Amino acid sequence: MYQTGEKIKVTVFGQSHSEAIGAVIEGLPAGIKLDMERIYAFMRRRAPGRDKFSTPRKEADLPEIISGLADGKTCGAPITAVIKNGDTKSKDYENLRLVPRPGHSDFTAFVKYGGCNDIRGGGQFSGRMTAPLCFAGAICMQLLEEKGIYIGAHIESVHGIHDERFNPINVTKDELDAIKAKDFCVISDKQGEAMKAEIDRVRGNLDSVGGTIECAVIGMPTGVGGPLFGGIEGRISSAIFAIPAVKGIEFGSGFSASEMYGSENNDSFYFDEDCVKTKTNNHGGILGGISSGMPILFRTAIKPTPSIAREQDSVNLKTKTSEKLVISGRHDPCIVQRAVPVIEAAAAITILDMLGE
Amino acid sequence: MYQTGEKIKVTVFGQSHSEAIGAVIEGLPAGIKLDMERIYAFMRRRAPGRDKFSTPRKEADLPEIISGLADGKTCGAPITAVIKNGDTKSKDYENLRLVPRPGHSDFTAFVKYGGCNDIRGGGQFSGRMTAPLCFAGAICMQLLEEKGIYIGAHIESVHGIHDERFNPINVTKDELDAIKAKDFCVISDKQGEAMKAEIDRVRGNLDSVGGTIECAVIGMPTGVGGPLFGGIEGRISSAIFAIPAVKGIEFGSGFSASEMYGSENNDSFYFDEDCVKTKTNNHGGILGGISSGMPILFRTAIKPTPSIAREQDSVNLKTKTSEKLVISGRHDPCIVQRAVPVIEAAAAITILDMLGE
Amino acid sequence: MYQTGEKIKVTVFGQSHSEAIGAVIEGLPAGIKLDMERIYAFMRRRAPGRDKFSTPRKEADLPEIISGLADGKTCGAPITAVIKNGDTKSKDYENLRLVPRPGHSDFTAFVKYGGCNDIRGGGQFSGRMTAPLCFAGAICMQLLEEKGIYIGAHIESVHGIHDERFNPINVTKDELDAIKAKDFCVISDKQGEAMKAEIDRVRGNLDSVGGTIECAVIGMPTGVGGPLFGGIEGRISSAIFAIPAVKGIEFGSGFSASEMYGSENNDSFYFDEDCVKTKTNNHGGILGGISSGMPILFRTAIKPTPSIAREQDSVNLKTKTSEKLVISGRHDPCIVQRAVPVIEAAAAITILDMLGE
Amino acid sequence: MYQTGEKIKVTVFGQSHSEAIGAVIEGLPAGIKLDMERIYAFMRRRAPGRDKFSTPRKEADLPEIISGLADGKTCGAPITAVIKNGDTKSKDYENLRLVPRPGHSDFTAFVKYGGCNDIRGGGQFSGRMTAPLCFAGAICMQLLEEKGIYIGAHIESVHGIHDERFNPINVTKDELDAIKAKDFCVISDKQGEAMKAEIDRVRGNLDSVGGTIECAVIGMPTGVGGPLFGGIEGRISSAIFAIPAVKGIEFGSGFSASEMYGSENNDSFYFDEDCVKTKTNNHGGILGGISSGMPILFRTAIKPTPSIAREQDSVNLKTKTSEKLVISGRHDPCIVQRAVPVIEAAAAITILDMLGE
Repeated sequence: MYQTGEKIKVTVFGQSHSEAIGAVIEGLPAGIKLDMERIYAFMRRRAPGRDKFSTPRKEADLPEIISGLADGKTCGAPITAVIKNGDTKSKDYENLRLVPRPGHSDFTAFVKYGGCNDIRGGGQFSGRMTAPLCFAGAICMQLLEEKGIYIGAHIESVHGIHDERFNPINVTKDELDAIKAKDFCVISDKQGEAMKAEIDRVRGNLDSVGGTIECAVIGMPTGVGGPLFGGIEGRISSAIFAIPAVKGIEFGSGFSASEMYGSENNDSFYFDEDCVKTKTNNHGGILGGISSGMPILFRTAIKPTPSIAREQDSVNLKTKTSEKLVISGRHDPCIVQRAVPVIEAAAAITILDMLGE
Repeated sequence: MYQTGEKIKVTVFGQSHSEAIGAVIEGLPAGIKLDMERIYAFMRRRAPGRDKFSTPRKEADLPEIISGLADGKTCGAPITAVIKNGDTKSKDYENLRLVPRPGHSDFTAFVKYGGCNDIRGGGQFSGRMTAPLCFAGAICMQLLEEKGIYIGAHIESVHGIHDERFNPINVTKDELDAIKAKDFCVISDKQGEAMKAEIDRVRGNLDSVGGTIECAVIGMPTGVGGPLFGGIEGRISSAIFAIPAVKGIEFGSGFSASEMYGSENNDSFYFDEDCVKTKTNNHGGILGGISSGMPILFRTAIKPTPSIAREQDSVNLKTKTSEKLVISGRHDPCIVQRAVPVIEAAAAITILDMLGE
Repeated sequence: MYQTGEKIKVTVFGQSHSEAIGAVIEGLPAGIKLDMERIYAFMRRRAPGRDKFSTPRKEADLPEIISGLADGKTCGAPITAVIKNGDTKSKDYENLRLVPRPGHSDFTAFVKYGGCNDIRGGGQFSGRMTAPLCFAGAICMQLLEEKGIYIGAHIESVHGIHDERFNPINVTKDELDAIKAKDFCVISDKQGEAMKAEIDRVRGNLDSVGGTIECAVIGMPTGVGGPLFGGIEGRISSAIFAIPAVKGIEFGSGFSASEMYGSENNDSFYFDEDCVKTKTNNHGGILGGISSGMPILFRTAIKPTPSIAREQDSVNLKTKTSEKLVISGRHDPCIVQRAVPVIEAAAAITILDMLGE
Repeated sequence: MYQTGEKIKVTVFGQSHSEAIGAVIEGLPAGIKLDMERIYAFMRRRAPGRDKFSTPRKEADLPEIISGLADGKTCGAPITAVIKNGDTKSKDYENLRLVPRPGHSDFTAFVKYGGCNDIRGGGQFSGRMTAPLCFAGAICMQLLEEKGIYIGAHIESVHGIHDERFNPINVTKDELDAIKAKDFCVISDKQGEAMKAEIDRVRGNLDSVGGTIECAVIGMPTGVGGPLFGGIEGRISSAIFAIPAVKGIEFGSGFSASEMYGSENNDSFYFDEDCVKTKTNNHGGILGGISSGMPILFRTAIKPTPSIAREQDSVNLKTKTSEKLVISGRHDPCIVQRAVPVIEAAAAITILDMLGE
């Protein structure tokens, strides 16, 4: 499935080294002027080469909108964006078809598609597929902001080095904006420096590391979502796990709730003027699958980049023998920093889709 | 959304104190003889009253099948099961409409439905809604077993007291069967006893605890799933978060992957006879959203039961003042043990739905 | 597929002789008081035995609502209605499994379900499955009426004997109400009498006849629907063809448009006070898949009841030889009159689903 | 809704004068070599300028495939085709925003999109949107042919001048191929000449005409489809009404069934060797929504092109007064001949989607 959404339907297409990748977005209201500068700015946060840790492949990654606009505004037809795949070196990949990379989709895609999968650059499994997701997310975020809903994330940890967390009962737009303005999206720059040093160190070791990302949705109206398969958690998860390398997700107190007493984990209600709030936010802004009006908070686990320069143990699918594998090319020692806007985009697409249900 | 599935479509209906709850299951093959004894046995694992920790409300919870069968076999029409709601004391609940229980959906449902939500027993947000899910899951599990696919879960922890984990590279049907046969589904009975003691203790304190559940899917054919929104993780998550009280989910090494090196987290391939396997299973049986043939492993976090006997701080939605709340009735001090078959059911529904895509 | 709808999702279940048939309706707003008397009245229009032409099987056909209500009002959970299948004589049908009735689904269902289909009373292919559709339609119609949208149909012809047509540019609620109040839903009672005489005559000949039904949707707001797969015509058709025996559908001038000039078929616009109207209504209230504000008009063709008392040529699927078939039991010589409310119901479900998209 | 399909999902995007139009096709098997020459040949049948009756706008209309292929074969990722919109004269259209063309979507789109719809060339309502549909259909047809399923249509009438009909019990691939090879797709060339003369005449009168198209699906396996919303008729209709200008559809004996006796309309079964067939084919190859193995036959009504050169009565939406409208530019006096492959494409997409359900 390359599509998500009930009302805002986002279809993602392309492979890492096909002619282009892109997205079709259906269900946006007509008459919206897209702020292309902000869309590009958002997408640049995901693009490689922004910091010294990212792969040097130069991706212009600037989407061209080929449908859905008239006089510069949405016209009710689906928005289609195409991002050309320019700087591709496809010959680096052919041997991976038979000698699959550990931690990658090479082996499972080989079986699923009978060996006909596009092995170049990871094909449709590539992290590059998150670029159209960011395009769609940037548009959704613009629409959400017009409703007073803001979404922002930060690197909560890299290889066990932790950033501060959001204050669960009070996250502000200014705070989110300040983090987004940074090259390396953390709350504590000091911890950010430690993370960067760790990434540098690991890369020198021909290895890689993962981390966690915390995301907040603020300004969310109360009463969005529903029980069972209509809950916000399930809807967000479904979009978040579409992002390669995500291994887990938790909302509010999450896994730590499993070690708490009910009397601790329950969040007491109180009135803040006319508004019902909770004194703590272990529920992560969601009760019964429905938004409570408190910040929606979730954490996502990102695994270490599976492409590492070290020699690894693999097999040759043709000869059915063991084979040592050395992955050529240069690869990110850590993708957590690049995943931050992608997480935001996935959340934005889901939240906009759910409003008004 | 009360429905899940692309090919096997499960629609859940009912509220805790409506006439009945139930499920409609579309997409099952014709000609299947349902093993009702096993379905009942499966559902009894979820039913309360099986151990001394569960609520004393006697739920027969035995589904009556009112459509979909001819001559005792599936006939291609949807299977509909109805479970009567017998022993209900609805008057216990009316005050909760205005004084919402912390940690419950009372407040958010009030807002979403303009105060018209069914407050009795939690309405459609009740844990009781998982009974029809178990019914559907039991059927799906029967069909999966005919294909050699087995699903089983165990209580991985209660309030920080941990069971052993599955051996990630080798989980057997016998092992899963042995756990299912237990009243308290753990691998280590010793740890199970410690958990039970803890639940007993906490209940004496008028409090509650949560825990974690580990689930395994074995015998899974390689090549099921897909990238992006078609990945197994997203599909399973979407069903798991339909279960009340779930706060997080992780696959394979999950959150701990965020603290590992790529060289540690990557699972090396090798040939076991003609079959490609991995030496470790940090990937949890899923690569690129597609099954690798290794056991699919995931862990779920369950929060402490929000209904506790202690006095709690809430508000009166009408008077807009603070109000102390004491929840009457008796409630489970821990629901982790009852959630085990529900997790299995949600996994079974999803996996059967995904086969052959 | 037993389900239709994007926002208002109607799932139909059951077989003619299963324990029960019914429907689950998701997506209705909370707080609606269902007018059960009107729902029953609507369903009685479809029920057999209302006139002397219908089958004598007594169907109480009164739905029991087992979920979705609290305090007599919708509570946001799906409405589930169950209609018991009481008076069934299943033994009449067994021979049809091997000797399929011409014009029925017996043969195709045999192939599709490998002989495991429910042959009793036509199983899930029975006209009886339209009873839950009427239940759902009656609810949708109530909600539509609160928005000023009315739907009504009449028998436009039986075996070539034609009723008058609606005035395409002006159909009134009173007119629709007057037709609904009749036992035999026609505009011209004289033509209705001729139709009834024809049905009587044909029944004496152990034969059957079909006809056409014209349906109008009035009070429709302008601007509902969309191009391509979102057009009103495609959405309505999809629901209408769910009704057994429907062979064709046309909107506005329909097939006769194929014999007109563009200058004839185009409907000129004019202002009626502040409201844009068309002088004629060949477009049937839909332009570009979107409602124009003029009455939506469509005609549906209903085939003659395939169950006739005459001996017919069939085959024995087991012996692979020709076999004469005489269908036992009594069957409607014409079902057009009973299909009228079913057409209305299918339209109501679709239109309510499309509002606000 | 710009998407159709359950397993083969086709998303259409673009407007007549946007940068490009196109389609994303998900769900095709991997490893298929697309026969681009045949795809282009199929699309040329729809393209204007093939005969002297079509609009002179030169549409290269050749799709560029920008994703979904690797080594020239499908790789499991969605196929995306982009068709550039080259020769567009957008200034011809601006006045239509306020003075809507009778019979067009100008007025309804204005209301739906608050005046922000793309008025140029009809925007997303343009007949040009059927080009990507043809692209998708051509691919689906290639896959169907590998399964021995063939689809072909012909102009059954233009302005009341009728072609012969298919022999309902025996349509051959050779016959379909012979029709497709013609510039003007009819069975009887003599009748085709009469139709062309009529179109010529009408165009001289600054008017337009419509017609009907008959389509056959042969080689269809028995047992595909289902009751209720899963019937072939409903699924095909839903796709056919996505085509602009379609006003009606009927299957098999269709509307004429409403004038037949049951004893006439019922098709007797017989064994042709081991194969069950019917002596007549009033059921149009579909019983109970399921394919019977006989040719699937349906007829579609196409209205006269609404764009005519004559002066017409319209309104000015701004000044709220009557206004005479003369549509500039040149327009097809008949689009029936161009709609033939579009009908085939819509059928192919639907049938491929339904196989194996």
